[in-house]
Amino acid sequence: MKELAKLMGYREAVRIIDATLRDGGLVNDFYFTDEFVKALYQTNIKAGVDYMEFGYKASKEMFDESKFGKWKFCKDEDIREIVGENNTDLKIAVMADVGRCDYKNDITDRSDSPIDLIRVATYLNTIPAAVDMIEDAANKGYEVSCNIMAISNSQESDLKLALDVLGQTPVDVFYIVDSFGSLYPEQIARIADIYLEFAEKYGKKLGIHAHNNQQLAFANTIEAVGDGVDWLDGTYAGMGRGAGNCAMELLLGFLRNPKFNVYPAIQFVEKYMNQLKAEGIVWGYDLQYLMTGILNQHPRTAIQFTKEKRTDYSEFYKEIVVQD
Amino acid sequence: MKELAKLMGYREAVRIIDATLRDGGLVNDFYFTDEFVKALYQTNIKAGVDYMEFGYKASKEMFDESKFGKWKFCKDEDIREIVGENNTDLKIAVMADVGRCDYKNDITDRSDSPIDLIRVATYLNTIPAAVDMIEDAANKGYEVSCNIMAISNSQESDLKLALDVLGQTPVDVFYIVDSFGSLYPEQIARIADIYLEFAEKYGKKLGIHAHNNQQLAFANTIEAVGDGVDWLDGTYAGMGRGAGNCAMELLLGFLRNPKFNVYPAIQFVEKYMNQLKAEGIVWGYDLQYLMTGILNQHPRTAIQFTKEKRTDYSEFYKEIVVQD
Repeated sequence: MKELAKLMGYREAVRIIDATLRDGGLVNDFYFTDEFVKALYQTNIKAGVDYMEFGYKASKEMFDESKFGKWKFCKDEDIREIVGENNTDLKIAVMADVGRCDYKNDITDRSDSPIDLIRVATYLNTIPAAVDMIEDAANKGYEVSCNIMAISNSQESDLKLALDVLGQTPVDVFYIVDSFGSLYPEQIARIADIYLEFAEKYGKKLGIHAHNNQQLAFANTIEAVGDGVDWLDGTYAGMGRGAGNCAMELLLGFLRNPKFNVYPAIQFVEKYMNQLKAEGIVWGYDLQYLMTGILNQHPRTAIQFTKEKRTDYSEFYKEIVVQD
Repeated sequence: MKELAKLMGYREAVRIIDATLRDGGLVNDFYFTDEFVKALYQTNIKAGVDYMEFGYKASKEMFDESKFGKWKFCKDEDIREIVGENNTDLKIAVMADVGRCDYKNDITDRSDSPIDLIRVATYLNTIPAAVDMIEDAANKGYEVSCNIMAISNSQESDLKLALDVLGQTPVDVFYIVDSFGSLYPEQIARIADIYLEFAEKYGKKLGIHAHNNQQLAFANTIEAVGDGVDWLDGTYAGMGRGAGNCAMELLLGFLRNPKFNVYPAIQFVEKYMNQLKAEGIVWGYDLQYLMTGILNQHPRTAIQFTKEKRTDYSEFYKEIVVQD
């Protein structure tokens, strides 16, 4: 049991990261209007959000620019068109995937860029490449976090090795990422303990990025807060790949620091997120995501099921159980 | 942190109660077809569910029978038409609300009835009447549980007094009920500790009935399992008043006892629950329920907002903040 005092007071160290454009962009191929992005930026400022993730720094060699909205690539000039000089308390983040990013060329010096934080995303088997990206970003002056993805099907001993290696880099934040939406709060607590050991050893912060396959994205996030995790990812209306993420409006309603405000989030969801849904963009909890979550599988089959507008859930279950 | 061993093994004492007809009936005024109810009954048997709650034993003096489906009243003969002699492991439950039930007349001896369990629902200020109903039901041979509603805005000392009084009755199960969907897992753990003290003192079992206003119905339910609560309410597709309840399919996917099966639940949701949604029956998480949850208010204003098909969430927020 957590101490209630932690809820009635608040943790000064908590940071909220809005990942709507980045994880939500995986749903609509990053085709957000400038009006949407500007309103999101203003909402984040009013709501007291700490970081706004604009999208990916994806390789233009690997991905065809004509097939995605601009937030797949997050050019400095496109961000500047939204934020100007960004003379606000809201910091700007982008994600860079190991193996899908020309970071040496596409990430410029921080002094020339509107970006504050580079979020390096890696699998356990690509840690050496992640280390190189972390060092590159830190040398260029950025804050750096590292998302270790798909940990729900990795070995604890491998995870510990990775954290020990990452601890020796200039990375600022280790992220717990439940890519498959398969973890229960008890497991989050156990994993957070492992992360905390290395965070304390190396003086790093901890973050969490949850998925909602089992309606646990918010619950896992607030479980983690009690376990020493301070960087919390949310997205408006929970928009994100597959079952989506921890809903920003739930996070803002929960956190007790008076700098956070839920009302701008409600206004934004009402006007902009519900509009996306009305346009036919589909994300969020549904049976196909529950099933891949339970089975600890990548959600790609469930996303395909959604795209094909299938509703034969029980057939789908049989298909993926066989794959298991 | 809970011990993971509890998840990898399983608690033999866990019971699942399907409350779809009862809490879901609050959404559609109990107008379920016989085909639906028969399929639900068969699904519960296949899924390993322990109790199926058919609805309320509501007073026919207070409620006009022509304005509700038959599961508002749960006459023995109507239940028998579905279950026959019910020669299965699935037990039958009904709910009886303090002050809205002619229990002395409408609840017959268990030996004459298909019902096994009477669930007495009370507020803290009607405990003496609840005691009378519990004794009446126990004397007639039933298993009896007691739901203490709306505890999120009650005093701990009153709650302890109530549990001490109820402990001295023949009730079998105390229920933790988060009527307003306003409790976080940490609070559930704290409340469960209070309940557990009296359950151990008097040899009673504990149950939980959660609401999904903050996407926490499932999370709060599995938090409670770890804290000694064994009777778990669920409804298919989470159907229930307002934001709905803990989804049965999530519960069945989580519990490790091999007697539980998620597949029949998936089939039922696919065929029957999605059909209800297609017919325009509305329940489940939405911003208006989040708001009443955060503010620890009864969801009646949010239900009205839903009925009127309003989408001006931010106006609604201003209305209910003023009421607070």
